[in-house]
Amino acid sequence: MKLISILRRLAILNCDILQNNIKKECKEVATVRTFYISSSAEQWGKNKKHRNIKLNLYFDAMADPQIEEVLAPLRATVKEQGDLVRKLKADGAPVLDVKKAVVELQARKKLLEDKELSLAPNKTFDRAKMEDLLKRRFFFDQSFAIYGGITGQFDFGPMGCAFKANLLQTWRQFFVLEEQMLEVDCSILTPEPVLKASGHVDRFADLMVKDTKTGECFRLDHLIKAHLEKISADKKTSAATREECQDIVIKLDGMNKDEMGAVMKKFDMKSPLTGNALTEPMEFNLMFATQIGPSGLIKGFLRPETAQGIFVNFKRLLEFNQGKLPFAAAQIGNAFRNEISPRSGLIRVREFTMAEIEHFCDPNDKAHPKFDNVRDTQLLLYSACNQMDGKPAERITIGVAVDSGLVANQTLGYFMARIQQFLVKSGVDPARLRFRQHMANEMAHYACDCWDAECLTSYGWIECVGCADRSAYDLTQHTNATGVRLAAEKKLPEPKIVDVVEAQSNKGLLGKTFKKDAKTITDALAALKIGDVEELESKLESTGSYELAVKDKNYTLSKDMVSVKRYQNTIHVEEIIPSVIEPSFGVGRVMYAIFEHNFKQRENDEQRTYLSLPAIVAPLKCSVLPLSSNQEFILFIKRISTELTKVDVSHKVDDSSGSIGRRYARTDEIAIPYGITIDFDTLKEPHTVTLRERDSMGQVRIPLDDIAQVVHNLSYSKQSWEDIENKYPKFEQQESKAV
Amino acid sequence: MKLISILRRLAILNCDILQNNIKKECKEVATVRTFYISSSAEQWGKNKKHRNIKLNLYFDAMADPQIEEVLAPLRATVKEQGDLVRKLKADGAPVLDVKKAVVELQARKKLLEDKELSLAPNKTFDRAKMEDLLKRRFFFDQSFAIYGGITGQFDFGPMGCAFKANLLQTWRQFFVLEEQMLEVDCSILTPEPVLKASGHVDRFADLMVKDTKTGECFRLDHLIKAHLEKISADKKTSAATREECQDIVIKLDGMNKDEMGAVMKKFDMKSPLTGNALTEPMEFNLMFATQIGPSGLIKGFLRPETAQGIFVNFKRLLEFNQGKLPFAAAQIGNAFRNEISPRSGLIRVREFTMAEIEHFCDPNDKAHPKFDNVRDTQLLLYSACNQMDGKPAERITIGVAVDSGLVANQTLGYFMARIQQFLVKSGVDPARLRFRQHMANEMAHYACDCWDAECLTSYGWIECVGCADRSAYDLTQHTNATGVRLAAEKKLPEPKIVDVVEAQSNKGLLGKTFKKDAKTITDALAALKIGDVEELESKLESTGSYELAVKDKNYTLSKDMVSVKRYQNTIHVEEIIPSVIEPSFGVGRVMYAIFEHNFKQRENDEQRTYLSLPAIVAPLKCSVLPLSSNQEFILFIKRISTELTKVDVSHKVDDSSGSIGRRYARTDEIAIPYGITIDFDTLKEPHTVTLRERDSMGQVRIPLDDIAQVVHNLSYSKQSWEDIENKYPKFEQQESKAV
Repeated sequence: MKLISILRRLAILNCDILQNNIKKECKEVATVRTFYISSSAEQWGKNKKHRNIKLNLYFDAMADPQIEEVLAPLRATVKEQGDLVRKLKADGAPVLDVKKAVVELQARKKLLEDKELSLAPNKTFDRAKMEDLLKRRFFFDQSFAIYGGITGQFDFGPMGCAFKANLLQTWRQFFVLEEQMLEVDCSILTPEPVLKASGHVDRFADLMVKDTKTGECFRLDHLIKAHLEKISADKKTSAATREECQDIVIKLDGMNKDEMGAVMKKFDMKSPLTGNALTEPMEFNLMFATQIGPSGLIKGFLRPETAQGIFVNFKRLLEFNQGKLPFAAAQIGNAFRNEISPRSGLIRVREFTMAEIEHFCDPNDKAHPKFDNVRDTQLLLYSACNQMDGKPAERITIGVAVDSGLVANQTLGYFMARIQQFLVKSGVDPARLRFRQHMANEMAHYACDCWDAECLTSYGWIECVGCADRSAYDLTQHTNATGVRLAAEKKLPEPKIVDVVEAQSNKGLLGKTFKKDAKTITDALAALKIGDVEELESKLESTGSYELAVKDKNYTLSKDMVSVKRYQNTIHVEEIIPSVIEPSFGVGRVMYAIFEHNFKQRENDEQRTYLSLPAIVAPLKCSVLPLSSNQEFILFIKRISTELTKVDVSHKVDDSSGSIGRRYARTDEIAIPYGITIDFDTLKEPHTVTLRERDSMGQVRIPLDDIAQVVHNLSYSKQSWEDIENKYPKFEQQESKAV
Repeated sequence: MKLISILRRLAILNCDILQNNIKKECKEVATVRTFYISSSAEQWGKNKKHRNIKLNLYFDAMADPQIEEVLAPLRATVKEQGDLVRKLKADGAPVLDVKKAVVELQARKKLLEDKELSLAPNKTFDRAKMEDLLKRRFFFDQSFAIYGGITGQFDFGPMGCAFKANLLQTWRQFFVLEEQMLEVDCSILTPEPVLKASGHVDRFADLMVKDTKTGECFRLDHLIKAHLEKISADKKTSAATREECQDIVIKLDGMNKDEMGAVMKKFDMKSPLTGNALTEPMEFNLMFATQIGPSGLIKGFLRPETAQGIFVNFKRLLEFNQGKLPFAAAQIGNAFRNEISPRSGLIRVREFTMAEIEHFCDPNDKAHPKFDNVRDTQLLLYSACNQMDGKPAERITIGVAVDSGLVANQTLGYFMARIQQFLVKSGVDPARLRFRQHMANEMAHYACDCWDAECLTSYGWIECVGCADRSAYDLTQHTNATGVRLAAEKKLPEPKIVDVVEAQSNKGLLGKTFKKDAKTITDALAALKIGDVEELESKLESTGSYELAVKDKNYTLSKDMVSVKRYQNTIHVEEIIPSVIEPSFGVGRVMYAIFEHNFKQRENDEQRTYLSLPAIVAPLKCSVLPLSSNQEFILFIKRISTELTKVDVSHKVDDSSGSIGRRYARTDEIAIPYGITIDFDTLKEPHTVTLRERDSMGQVRIPLDDIAQVVHNLSYSKQSWEDIENKYPKFEQQESKAV
């Protein structure tokens, strides 16, 4: 998630406190060469059968030579700049020059991507229409709407909540149970020291200024950028000023508070809304702060990510796993982020649900035992190299990607494949899903490799799942902060014999001589490194005494107070700080992408919109519709409802007065995949009912005794609609007639 | 939950703003007479088969004449005081006298209950042993333990988290799906005006004082009480002072900040820990406060209960239900409460999960369509009457309880029965579950009746689920605060013709005369009540003009600006504010009660402890144990594991080196109900395995092909262990031999 990107940026600044074992792990991803095959998109086309939104054709369009002709010059400019960045880096050019070149590279990439998207033929997706449906049928809506609402907060109504619960249940089944992960449920309120260690307290902040009269807030970098761009655009501006402005904009990302403040003063910036004066720049931490307990002495925050709860419990989790690596822990829960200006519906919000996995493994062995199960899974990979070369994303198998070194290791690759499987199972259109690799300049020192699962929506490509190798960063930070070693023991291939040189105290004499300080001295002696012991030995030899410094005090030790012992020790294990591979799901974003990818209109009736959510995540699996209010139907409704409940099929009885066609349309809107209709033929023996499938609108006639089990099997992917159509007679009455 | 009790107290203070329709609903519960039958406990005894904790015998003990002899005088003193309270109320005695008598009544009730519990024979429960197990196997532990921990916050480890997830999934199945409730998922961060309307901002607070030097906090009422009781206990204290102290203690509950401050000064109270001076009393709101957004202008709180999210969405939910009553909404989510001194493990915490249901119904019709399904369910009811009479709780059917008027209505009764069914299904011992009715003095004006499901634990009886009739209180409060009418329309039995008298504006003339104020005047005229219109009419008749006051302004209207129209209107519906019946589950407390009720020791080995959680909520359903590390077993382990995953059975492979008996003991500790053992007979054809049941330690031999489905059926209550024992051959090898 974005959180991670920001943390990543922080970690760069933070690099001096990073341990050597982290640095050791990192490779220069930009040097990885891509020499893998690009495979046909034919296989992926199969999924398009029921997907009539033209955006789908995006990737096919890419193969269109006419479109490629338009894109070619844009691709070339990206490549030109990408090559420049590489050259500057290779030449060891000044950091600022590299930065400037990267900013330009990103601008060119953006141009290319915008052009690509604009050339995708016939985008028929109508966001306003979808939002109307989602609001009208209460999938979700702004929180506290009757009080005027709060931006960036949403309540899920019955349909949204059931969809979310089913999505999370599927996630739990797919990841936690199938992979036997250790799921935890940790506190949201987090005391300051924990988030100080993780880097959030000091750096998870944006610079702000306020309108001195209205209190309106502005993000300082956005404000400066907008102001300087306005000056640059002014024809009256001199060439020199224009260049200065452009130079500042490029450098903005690396400027600190004082530097930005100076720019603000120099250009005499005011509130763009009121023209009022602005305050001095201030840091605005994006975490919600509060006080824990009544004393006001314990400062706390609402957690900005769920991951930290797992890291601080690492020791217990390792114990639970009987000390063995690798293992994965998982957590589903809410996190909070005090956005300055939330927007884009569910995509940028202040309160959100995350589902995170932290897979702990040996930093020197990131193989995954189940990698062969996913080796042949094809993914659309948008590598850092291709991004720099202006090339499009490419579809290759994860096996090839890992073998070629494009994806850093098997575990990362395994999770990428599993993430795709999960997303597609839950309703994401595979043709609108890609994995984008972070470019070297986006990635933190502690990360070896990072791929974001991005979904194409009407907002462009949005990051829905991050999949990063976080190395040992977090465990190291918490170890440093608490003194509790968050490490694992690794059995050595063979026992190792080590030489031990130890300073041993004469405790009796030390106690007599130094009284209460004796323990301090004994501890200090025991903690001496080999070199120090040897120095002590030679000092005692030569001068007969040794000056031991502990904190601010010096103690003079004589020969009879301490002796040096030498022996050998056999060591069977070494201590390692595990690496962490982290797949991190933004649940609201995944839901939003699924909404967009499944919002459909009936072919001959654009007003008739529906949601084609897969049954496994659909809020309700089935509707029960009596043809009319005939009293004889009531017993059948009750019987079917009871039987459906027995086999865990959530359903809705709609016995309102609308025509069957109208009621089908209403259940289609809330994504109910199957509909059971009770009609006059149902009353005859043997009793039968009609079963309708939402996407194809096909109908079959099924014996009453079979119906509950059939819908159960369909809902939990144990049978397909094709199976059912083959087994039972087609019901021929046209839906349109019934309307 | 306790939240409700506090709110209830608030609502009493708040009564003047309550609407008439709320008051109308309330009955004097204390006048309800109990004339129901008491049934035998024989039926309930059946459940004791596997419940070997002696606490279970509590209720049987009550029937022991020797024990009853000890309790008789205590029962008599309660009754004496209960009768006094009734008399004082009947005589209309001063409020303070009633209060004093109630405090004494409560003290006597407490004495009786403590005695009852102390006489329960052979309490063998060892809390320290249970806590050791729960911590050692990481069911839960203090949050941020490596940072020293925070009181009142807990993290659930893999076993606790899985148990919690299964419990919530069972709850969702049992309530939301089976009753077709509308589940919602609302924001935790709540803006101030919402909680102002609900009463939480002003009154959800305790009075505090702080040690001026250390900052240590004390709840003021606790501090005063302890101080005055100490003075009273001192033999040197004069009779007059002693009486004064006792008088203050009794009145303490009703004192305000200034009064308590005066008491503190008069008795010169200091910090009981340091002897330092104390600050002035201050109000400490129990909600966690924060700022929403960067401006610092929007104050928000972490919600103290999930219920308000449902109330503010009432209009949309009613729409979703096509305008029809009754319907129920439900929500599972976290709530927060800044406790001054959290204690008692999971029972009083700062961050907790609630599962709440708000059932909205016609205030004049609280019948429940499914009440007959539960009519014969027996509950242990501890009525307000029995509490005042010193009588024990009585076991009667909910049908009789509702018919006799003891439980206020069918909907409340239906939910009480369902709550019991759910709790027992999830592992609460029915012999340690009672429903305690709130006494008249505990109940708010807006509540008609309230019963708490209480579980007997080593902490005494603890409230786990509240079940209250909240009447129209909350919807009314939010309607008043927002002007959005949170009401439903009810069809009248027959159309009603009403007389309408309306003041109609001459808009053209008003516009000409009053310009921009014209709309204000038009709106004010349209809003006039009948009496005002008639007054306007007579004024215009007699004087030719009328003075209309709108806010601070007066407007003089002439006869040609406004005319009075009279006509009749036919009305088909009336507007009603629904009543709310609220079952509210404290999930952590329910979990804690289940832990205590299922913590067992093997009969001949007290060190061998285990948890007998029902399979439906057990963290894992099954273990897979190879007899040894023989390589031939590995394929069988894989095959069984894959098949169990396919049928949704969560499981754990334990191929560590301990003996089978040792490994069974380890899986028993984490409540795994079934264990599959692979041994050398498994290798022979036809392949078979051993299946062991945790509580009875019985074992059977089952074909490999059947095993996954058998464990699935057992785990989801589709077959009982008896069924399996009857179908498959018993496996005779004794567990003790294997150890």
